Amino acid sequence: MKKGIAEVPGVKCGVGFGGIKKTIHPTNKPDTLLITFDEPSTFVAVFTQNEVKAAPIKVSQQIKGKISGIVANSGNANACTGDEGIQNALTMIQLAKEYSKTKGQFLVASTGVIGEPLPMDRIEKGIKEAAKNLGEAVSIQPAEAIMTTDTFPKVAFEEGKGYVIGGIAKGAGMIDPSMATMLSFIATDAQIPEDLLKTALKEAVEVSFNAITVDGDMSTNDCVFLVATGKSNVEINKDNFSEFKRKLTNLLKSLAYQIVKDGEGATKVARIRIKNAVNREQAKKIARKIALSPLVKTAIFGCDPNWGRIIAAAGAAQAGFKEEKAELKIGQYLLFKNGKKSNYNEEKVWKYMKDNEEIVIELHLNQGTEEFEYLTCDFSYDYIKINAEYRT
Amino acid sequence: MKKGIAEVPGVKCGVGFGGIKKTIHPTNKPDTLLITFDEPSTFVAVFTQNEVKAAPIKVSQQIKGKISGIVANSGNANACTGDEGIQNALTMIQLAKEYSKTKGQFLVASTGVIGEPLPMDRIEKGIKEAAKNLGEAVSIQPAEAIMTTDTFPKVAFEEGKGYVIGGIAKGAGMIDPSMATMLSFIATDAQIPEDLLKTALKEAVEVSFNAITVDGDMSTNDCVFLVATGKSNVEINKDNFSEFKRKLTNLLKSLAYQIVKDGEGATKVARIRIKNAVNREQAKKIARKIALSPLVKTAIFGCDPNWGRIIAAAGAAQAGFKEEKAELKIGQYLLFKNGKKSNYNEEKVWKYMKDNEEIVIELHLNQGTEEFEYLTCDFSYDYIKINAEYRT
Repeated sequence: MKKGIAEVPGVKCGVGFGGIKKTIHPTNKPDTLLITFDEPSTFVAVFTQNEVKAAPIKVSQQIKGKISGIVANSGNANACTGDEGIQNALTMIQLAKEYSKTKGQFLVASTGVIGEPLPMDRIEKGIKEAAKNLGEAVSIQPAEAIMTTDTFPKVAFEEGKGYVIGGIAKGAGMIDPSMATMLSFIATDAQIPEDLLKTALKEAVEVSFNAITVDGDMSTNDCVFLVATGKSNVEINKDNFSEFKRKLTNLLKSLAYQIVKDGEGATKVARIRIKNAVNREQAKKIARKIALSPLVKTAIFGCDPNWGRIIAAAGAAQAGFKEEKAELKIGQYLLFKNGKKSNYNEEKVWKYMKDNEEIVIELHLNQGTEEFEYLTCDFSYDYIKINAEYRT
Repeated sequence: MKKGIAEVPGVKCGVGFGGIKKTIHPTNKPDTLLITFDEPSTFVAVFTQNEVKAAPIKVSQQIKGKISGIVANSGNANACTGDEGIQNALTMIQLAKEYSKTKGQFLVASTGVIGEPLPMDRIEKGIKEAAKNLGEAVSIQPAEAIMTTDTFPKVAFEEGKGYVIGGIAKGAGMIDPSMATMLSFIATDAQIPEDLLKTALKEAVEVSFNAITVDGDMSTNDCVFLVATGKSNVEINKDNFSEFKRKLTNLLKSLAYQIVKDGEGATKVARIRIKNAVNREQAKKIARKIALSPLVKTAIFGCDPNWGRIIAAAGAAQAGFKEEKAELKIGQYLLFKNGKKSNYNEEKVWKYMKDNEEIVIELHLNQGTEEFEYLTCDFSYDYIKINAEYRT
């Protein structure tokens, strides 16, 4: 059985079906998620940097101190909904507290279509049902409740020395860092002070959720909540902090990978690995520009080792790329060196791209020692299909 | 008959078929263009800002003083081709001078696939043929010789008081400002000093070629050449400069519009008009982010008035967008005001988007008095088809 957030001691999950997302998922998948913590717990959060923030983001950003629970829905983003939206987000929290008979503060999150008022009768139905089965939703079930165009639920789990970390995420479209269009809820039973938790989350997000793209669109609703229940009684301090951070990073990278793999219409994941850069910023800028290029993404879909588009994108990043120094590999094949095409067997590279679901594109800048890796997916007919027909 | 660069007094055009682009256009369309000027002429040029520059760009950037001609080919970009590429670009100029029996300097440009050495025997065949019919290629014929994935030739012509301006352009994919993936050659028979010509071109490019996008990919080969033959004997000075600039801007805007209309797989052109901005920079940033958003572009393809994606993109621009002040219109329909959906008839907006090839998206920021307009096109199945199969 796959483990996620429900398998972290001190966490209880329940899911409900309110009928909120039936236009997106006509199946009877749950659309409401309720999470409660046995004790008020330390938490840190990261929110979208979009200047347009959904109502639940605005509400959750105000919450300080410890939290007792999280309530979330899929199918409706409660974004661009004015004062009514804020009121509805507050009502979601109120309903979650009442039905789960939990005191203390709740975080709230929503994902789905922008601009429609939340159908509060369905929201209430969902929360009521989720409260009834609180503690019974396990494994992938909490992740299923926050899916929209996702085709599979995203969970990850890590074990440290005496503690665990478990998380879920959703995300498939409108994915672009800082943040991606995604929700992610993570819990650990470690005891960890808020400032350490914040540092760990910030650094882990930078190389995971902030290093992926599906379509370069930044959402109004992105948020990552990380909660420490303390149930393990294992304290994180300067001795074991780096282990904790490594475990958390692995977990976030796993969730981020799953989001890209489930990118709308994606058939392949590409690792854009920039090496030997002057600094990390340069590596990231070039990696991001390549990862975002529709021409590179369509070439990956077509299994076309079109290295010219990759080199053109690297130059377009305007980060000090030097074509005469660079070396480009796809898989083990060297395609470009000394400012021009190298001798390679086109058929073999095509076959590598055709046969693998994960493509490694490695660009050595040969200007320094820093590196950065970005994850992206290919651009297929289905991306167009999903997004031209999403609301109809 | 449509007029282009060949209709400017003092300009002669010839086209040739060397067989360079037969993998792209299996038809017998010309792939070589030769332009000569009756007298050495003043010119100004704008080049791609991509750090990876094609060999012809590197060669043309070195040319100062007056020029006697331009030689260009389509089907092969002569980009990422090392020292051999530079040599081949210089040879193109040499061949153009010899076959056309023209003394003086030539500019050189190439467009097409990146990374393959120029097939010099075919290039020579094309230039030889073009020189033979020099002066006979008129109207759309010079534009046809520089087409790659373009589906129609792009020409424009303007008449000022006593002088004319004529131009051609190519471009359909890898289009993103500063510069777009395009070539454009423009001539005027006005007499105008180089500094005024430079100012006029810079300002006109800013609101035309630098205000369009097809896919956000910046090319290695973009260039715009503007030549003044002086044949009209009409001098441009401070009295008639603003008229000249206006005419030139109109011409460039017309060519830019044609490029977006011919965007790879495009079925619609969208005008992203940002009004009442604090300053032009803010308006441009927000317009550009909306114009680049794959989610907005797929919604336009689906005729879906999905205003949430437009508002989310405006916020993602991080240029000080304030959702509570903004008003969004598609066509004449007000979709968003006071931070939320306004009352509109979804069916009517859908019909407007369905029935029109040009969609006007107008976002009033209500923060100031400045504005900027960006042109983009929709994202369709055919964009994927063209770019996943381009080289195969």
